[in-house]
Amino acid sequence: PDTKLPKVGTTIFTVMSQLAIEHGAVNLGQGFPDFDVPARLVDALARAMREGRNQYSPMTGVPALRQAIAEKTERCYGWRPDAESEITVTSGASEAIFDAVHAVVRPGDEVIVLDPCYDCYEPAIELAGGVAVHVPLDPRTFAPDWDAVRRAITPRTRMLMTNTPHNPSGAMLDESDVRALIDLLEGTDIYLLSDEVYEHIVFDGRRHESALRYAELRERAFVVSSFGKTYHCTGWKVGYCIAPPALSAEFRKVHQYNTFCTFTPAQFAFAEMIEAEPEHYEQLGAFYETKRDRFREQLLTTKLQPLPVPGGYFQLVDYSAVSDLDDAAFCRWLTTEKGVVAIPLSPFYGTPPVGQRLARLCFAKNEATLDAAIERLRML
Amino acid sequence: PDTKLPKVGTTIFTVMSQLAIEHGAVNLGQGFPDFDVPARLVDALARAMREGRNQYSPMTGVPALRQAIAEKTERCYGWRPDAESEITVTSGASEAIFDAVHAVVRPGDEVIVLDPCYDCYEPAIELAGGVAVHVPLDPRTFAPDWDAVRRAITPRTRMLMTNTPHNPSGAMLDESDVRALIDLLEGTDIYLLSDEVYEHIVFDGRRHESALRYAELRERAFVVSSFGKTYHCTGWKVGYCIAPPALSAEFRKVHQYNTFCTFTPAQFAFAEMIEAEPEHYEQLGAFYETKRDRFREQLLTTKLQPLPVPGGYFQLVDYSAVSDLDDAAFCRWLTTEKGVVAIPLSPFYGTPPVGQRLARLCFAKNEATLDAAIERLRML
Ligand SMILES: CSCCC(=O)C(=O)O
Ligand SMILES: CSCCC(=O)C(=O)O
Repeated sequence: PDTKLPKVGTTIFTVMSQLAIEHGAVNLGQGFPDFDVPARLVDALARAMREGRNQYSPMTGVPALRQAIAEKTERCYGWRPDAESEITVTSGASEAIFDAVHAVVRPGDEVIVLDPCYDCYEPAIELAGGVAVHVPLDPRTFAPDWDAVRRAITPRTRMLMTNTPHNPSGAMLDESDVRALIDLLEGTDIYLLSDEVYEHIVFDGRRHESALRYAELRERAFVVSSFGKTYHCTGWKVGYCIAPPALSAEFRKVHQYNTFCTFTPAQFAFAEMIEAEPEHYEQLGAFYETKRDRFREQLLTTKLQPLPVPGGYFQLVDYSAVSDLDDAAFCRWLTTEKGVVAIPLSPFYGTPPVGQRLARLCFAKNEATLDAAIERLRML
Repeated sequence: PDTKLPKVGTTIFTVMSQLAIEHGAVNLGQGFPDFDVPARLVDALARAMREGRNQYSPMTGVPALRQAIAEKTERCYGWRPDAESEITVTSGASEAIFDAVHAVVRPGDEVIVLDPCYDCYEPAIELAGGVAVHVPLDPRTFAPDWDAVRRAITPRTRMLMTNTPHNPSGAMLDESDVRALIDLLEGTDIYLLSDEVYEHIVFDGRRHESALRYAELRERAFVVSSFGKTYHCTGWKVGYCIAPPALSAEFRKVHQYNTFCTFTPAQFAFAEMIEAEPEHYEQLGAFYETKRDRFREQLLTTKLQPLPVPGGYFQLVDYSAVSDLDDAAFCRWLTTEKGVVAIPLSPFYGTPPVGQRLARLCFAKNEATLDAAIERLRML
């Protein structure tokens, strides 16, 4: 058939995970942990199933989970969303992004995305009939150039998408970014979609600048997060969207006819886990900071040059001392010839910068996995 | 904000389930069982979690599950889809319907739906920029009028949606319907979306006429099913779409940027369950037939007149001997005043037929639940 998404191929994550299997490579590509989900969460989910909580949940999510999200949000960001009218549980953050875009983006609308960005943003925009307007982040620090963003705004601009901590770079918006963003949006009717799935993985005492902290942002924002990164269960696909009542109403119109609701027993399990062990998400930054530090130290024994990692669980490396290949070719070579999977950055761009020699490594792995990767990377 | 879906409100299922809770009514509304998921399935899911199968599955679904679906399809319908290129696992049948529509329906395209039909069809079509063209089924037998369908076809017709066994009526397409459908579509490039989520709930020795049985249909079809109705777990939200490779490729472009993948441990559990206990789905018709027969016999002791139920787990009743209210008002009254939740048919129509006095009761319930409902219905 003719295609509605001519530019879309298979995601880089699928391609590289496939290649990893074929070549028995150490997989630092797709972002998922290789260690266990907290035992309490598994037990709570099994219990929910055995207690018969296996039928449709409310379309907006299990009430106890929405309450738990409201409380956690207040605890973390000093503002409490209304569980009834402002929180909607989704089948992962991806569905939430898809729904938010489809809720407000109309044919011909423009959505500003900051490159590099997660590869699901643009296809969602295109399917909604919109146009992604790409504004590059700084190619080294991955900080937004707010003046460039301002210049990209037109009367058709419907939405701006941000992501902090940032995939693939780990960069984080700081308070001055937020001030610039508030300034920029003031007086416009541009919506903000803030992707915050790495919200609890922040390092060196930094503060996660959730859009929910700022009244001027949250009044126009769809704030998307998920439990996959926080609870080491990327395959459980439970996410959520926090938005003001009027925006949540539009969001829910899409959600209720898309997936309608989300795996019910997991919703009960997360409700219990969030309330019973807040220390889990509070200590997640420290947990990953240890991994980051150890991994970076090991990388210094290779020819790869690690970039700073303020948050998230990805480490960018500059490989220009190793190879002159472009990033896609380099990552393929690294996987097939050297046995380590990395993700190239070019698929995260509308127009990839020429000559950028960066690859992304995921350090959400056991020490043994990271050690095995480092051993191979030392041979470069 | 202005709205992209002006016609969309909260689904009737959400409204009535809410009302059920408020009034402590016996809930025969939203279609979900009140009995247990098979123990093997619960155990298999718990085991999958404990074995660490908690990360992203492949975007197309866990290979073992796609294999199991291929084998089950061959066993049931005499044709084996290719697990690699023709089967995609989704977060429920609703996501599959949403993805199929978004994969092929372009702005201005027409999609023929047969009224009454499940309420997620039209919003999905509208969000894709398409137009739903409503062709009524027979108001008593719910059989398609294929000549009327033929007259509804225009050069803009992109897709036709069918549903057998049918929600809300329980009607089933028979072989002569399929022949008429094949005739109708021959020489056109109209896609077929065949919603078959009640495929295993068929009665009185009838045969489920899956589109997959017929080469002329499956070459242009997205066949959507799910495990929710078959394994008594409507809240698990694992469905799938079977379509030819070229259509599956387009389908997957949407799916991969919508939910990307589906709760991984459940996929392993279903793979095991389908292979280990084929008798479960083979005996499901008999299991529900007993319920249907008992419930219908009980209904004969009330003033409600039961219509025939060839398949599915819904019983339509004509309430004209009880009330002259329209169906929405009747179902609300039945819930709030009489303590039994039924679903009106009008939300399943583009234009509800005037004077239709039908309501839908779900009999996927324990005997005690059905008995409690009947006791109340006897008082009408
Ligand atoms: C849904 S696959 C992508 C996983 C991920 O978050 C990443 O690797 O960037
Ligand atoms: C997703 S809520 C609707 C459930 C259902 O299948 C029905 O009651 O028709």
